[in-house]
Amino acid sequence: MNSQKLYNDYKAAMQKIADLRFSISLLNWDQECYMPKSGAGFRAQQIGTLSAIAHEMFVDSKLGDILSQLNTSGDLDENQKRNVQESWKDFSREKKYPTEFVERMALTTSQTYQAWLSAREKNDFSVYASMLDTMIKMKREEADILGYENHPYNALLDLYEPDCKVMDLDVLFEDVKKNLVDYVKNISNQKQVETGFLKQNFPYQKQWDFGIDILKQMGYDFDAGRQDISPHPFTTNFSMKDVRVTTRVNENDFSSMTWSCIHEGGHALYEQGLKEENYGLPLGEAVSLGIHESQSRLWENLIGRSFNFWNANYSALKKYFPNQLEKVSALDFYKSINAVKPSFIRVEADELTYHFHIMIRYDIEKQLMDKSIEVKNLAEYWNDSYKKYLGLSVPSDNSGVLQDIHWSHGSIGYFPTYSLGSFYSVQFFNQAKKEINSLDEKVSKGELHELREWLRGKIHQHGRKYSAKELCMRITGEPLNFKHFMNYVKQKYDGIYF
Amino acid sequence: MNSQKLYNDYKAAMQKIADLRFSISLLNWDQECYMPKSGAGFRAQQIGTLSAIAHEMFVDSKLGDILSQLNTSGDLDENQKRNVQESWKDFSREKKYPTEFVERMALTTSQTYQAWLSAREKNDFSVYASMLDTMIKMKREEADILGYENHPYNALLDLYEPDCKVMDLDVLFEDVKKNLVDYVKNISNQKQVETGFLKQNFPYQKQWDFGIDILKQMGYDFDAGRQDISPHPFTTNFSMKDVRVTTRVNENDFSSMTWSCIHEGGHALYEQGLKEENYGLPLGEAVSLGIHESQSRLWENLIGRSFNFWNANYSALKKYFPNQLEKVSALDFYKSINAVKPSFIRVEADELTYHFHIMIRYDIEKQLMDKSIEVKNLAEYWNDSYKKYLGLSVPSDNSGVLQDIHWSHGSIGYFPTYSLGSFYSVQFFNQAKKEINSLDEKVSKGELHELREWLRGKIHQHGRKYSAKELCMRITGEPLNFKHFMNYVKQKYDGIYF
Repeated sequence: MNSQKLYNDYKAAMQKIADLRFSISLLNWDQECYMPKSGAGFRAQQIGTLSAIAHEMFVDSKLGDILSQLNTSGDLDENQKRNVQESWKDFSREKKYPTEFVERMALTTSQTYQAWLSAREKNDFSVYASMLDTMIKMKREEADILGYENHPYNALLDLYEPDCKVMDLDVLFEDVKKNLVDYVKNISNQKQVETGFLKQNFPYQKQWDFGIDILKQMGYDFDAGRQDISPHPFTTNFSMKDVRVTTRVNENDFSSMTWSCIHEGGHALYEQGLKEENYGLPLGEAVSLGIHESQSRLWENLIGRSFNFWNANYSALKKYFPNQLEKVSALDFYKSINAVKPSFIRVEADELTYHFHIMIRYDIEKQLMDKSIEVKNLAEYWNDSYKKYLGLSVPSDNSGVLQDIHWSHGSIGYFPTYSLGSFYSVQFFNQAKKEINSLDEKVSKGELHELREWLRGKIHQHGRKYSAKELCMRITGEPLNFKHFMNYVKQKYDGIYF
Repeated sequence: MNSQKLYNDYKAAMQKIADLRFSISLLNWDQECYMPKSGAGFRAQQIGTLSAIAHEMFVDSKLGDILSQLNTSGDLDENQKRNVQESWKDFSREKKYPTEFVERMALTTSQTYQAWLSAREKNDFSVYASMLDTMIKMKREEADILGYENHPYNALLDLYEPDCKVMDLDVLFEDVKKNLVDYVKNISNQKQVETGFLKQNFPYQKQWDFGIDILKQMGYDFDAGRQDISPHPFTTNFSMKDVRVTTRVNENDFSSMTWSCIHEGGHALYEQGLKEENYGLPLGEAVSLGIHESQSRLWENLIGRSFNFWNANYSALKKYFPNQLEKVSALDFYKSINAVKPSFIRVEADELTYHFHIMIRYDIEKQLMDKSIEVKNLAEYWNDSYKKYLGLSVPSDNSGVLQDIHWSHGSIGYFPTYSLGSFYSVQFFNQAKKEINSLDEKVSKGELHELREWLRGKIHQHGRKYSAKELCMRITGEPLNFKHFMNYVKQKYDGIYF
């Protein structure tokens, strides 16, 4: 059959699958944002049914035949070839899972999540340990199903960050250990910055309005998206023309909303920057979670916690909250939102100690996978690690090993992408400063347009055309290197603390 | 194969199809309530894909085999038999449509709707006439595909109101013509009631809050539903545990919101009253649009526009709007919300003249189907009818033949169910008054619980167990009869106008 005809069949099949997957995303979005509580049971069933149909359509042997024919066809252009390659990779991986395993995993996930909820309620890890142990065993089984070299964890990492290996992460987190741990200890010995004024009453509606202003300034397209409230902020998309963010508002803590808006806005710009023509195809999808996170963190930290950004926006913020911020200078505000302080909870951590949280989780995940540690010893190991790297005595399981939902969902290999994102973001931003005339000055005037376009051109529009590693080489001329992050940290935090 | 095993296979298949159909409903709900405008293109595609999958799953020959085996099985209980019968009817009908016709209809519907939008914009029926003509021809074709006795319109009626025939409707609307037209003329000659105070400023949030109060009083379960804003109020459901209503608020017209809340709330109580165990099965679905509308209208008119209801709620309303209603007595308020006045727009019509709007549409639809009139003469015929029955000269096509979306969607045979609903509602309510001790008194104290339970027991819980006609016989002991509606009208409106 003619290659272009075949390619069109492939594209049509992929778009139908995307139609289902995006519908599932809407079912999930609604579940988080609007669904009344009694709707939960049937909703879970509906998501299950649509997921099964999407899976069946994707592993259909007809699609497999088309892909394998296209794989050897010489008549495709570069983008078409890349789409076919990536889809073939996805298809081949998906085909490896026996139906029995998929069904068992669905059940185990649901049970482990329920056990986690119970354990959270009782603030007691032991309630959850045996289900988590079952889950970890299944994840080892999954690694075997998928296949791997050197370390079973590599198989799982690949699900979130294709081509990323234990070897890469070991280098990075060794750097974190060698450089960042001591740097943070030094900060602890300095005079601490004032942060109390962030905990005043900041009325809901004003916070919300300010968040919307910032999203607009970032160039988030409200004709192709919207913001809603959910317990945990997230970004989701139903096409590149409908990319939604959520946030939450704590009236007694200004830190809660603004940077979550900016963070999710960064994710959303990536999705809005994908090309419409690639709907349903790999080139219409983000390349990896690490690169996705590089976008959210670039906006959240390198822009949203920079002095330049607040130079542009602090007077607008003071108009919203004149009394609360009356006596707070822009500089003091900037320092307060960058305060470094070891704490128990990952999602509340500052820009630096955040990576200790990830480092600890990475260390644990890797050892769970190669059986160096056992689930029953996890709480103890966790607490020892927090003592060692953050200098903290974890007071309870809820503030410790039970804090994250990820493992209960079977997401092992996900956490490292958060750190990867931060490290990539600095390397990308440094390059942006080289290529965009007076970027700092523009940011300090609230002119973010050029940066957004730069990111779109360099990253967003390509989807999965290049791997994360290739993208980093293409953009910055070198592989990911922790030194860029560390240099940025020193420059910024020396200014604040030393 | 064992009948119960076979029945379980049937049930599982039906529930999967329901999962898809309810997902489509969510895609639609979101489209009306929250979707950003650029999302429209891909959303339409997603709805199309899911619809096609649901259709394919339903007309699958395996399901057909199961149904035909179950059809002749003696081992099913009464409810199971009814489910199978009704599904077989649905299946047989769905199978009649050639794929070519389904695809052509989808295209024609989209084009006719677009033509209607253009015509609305230009306020000119002729822009739309040729597409509507194509649509009408396809509806005649559809009637031929489906088959019918006596009149092609019967085939289309059956889609919305199973077993309802032209013969039934002719009798009803002849009664409308003979009784109601003159009655309304007499009202026109009486002193008109004061309605001006309904057009003051009624702030958004207070209207919203009052609407929520009323929905709660009706017994609408907010744990299994929610209310949102949409341009046109509607009720939709994603299971009996997630039944949502929408409304709209006009700050300068109190009439706009409250009765739409009550109306949609009536629809929603029906859906919330279906039994969970029947999810995905005919017994888990409303029996007909007419019966559905009987529930919305019973609540909207027989409760929501009754003096008893406002006896219970007027003081609460005055608390929300003390200035606006300061000088308005409960009686004057009651009269104003029941003012009878011929007008151009169906959705703004009062409880009586509403049926003239439907009568005219029914007359036109029937004649379009049997070719007694042609589309090109429709505007003229419309205007003549409005002159004849409502005494009004239609000033423009937008206020006339272009006002409704229904025909542009290919919904022919839908309008009569609105009148059927009103007529059924009176007959049901009369019976409720016989069976519920001092119902009027309870309503006048805001005690609506017993009425809701009565409706649930008599109607909601049965789903499609009985046909609409059977249901009416079972509940009221006689077939639908217009005289009950007319008696109600006289009793109520004699009190207001004579």
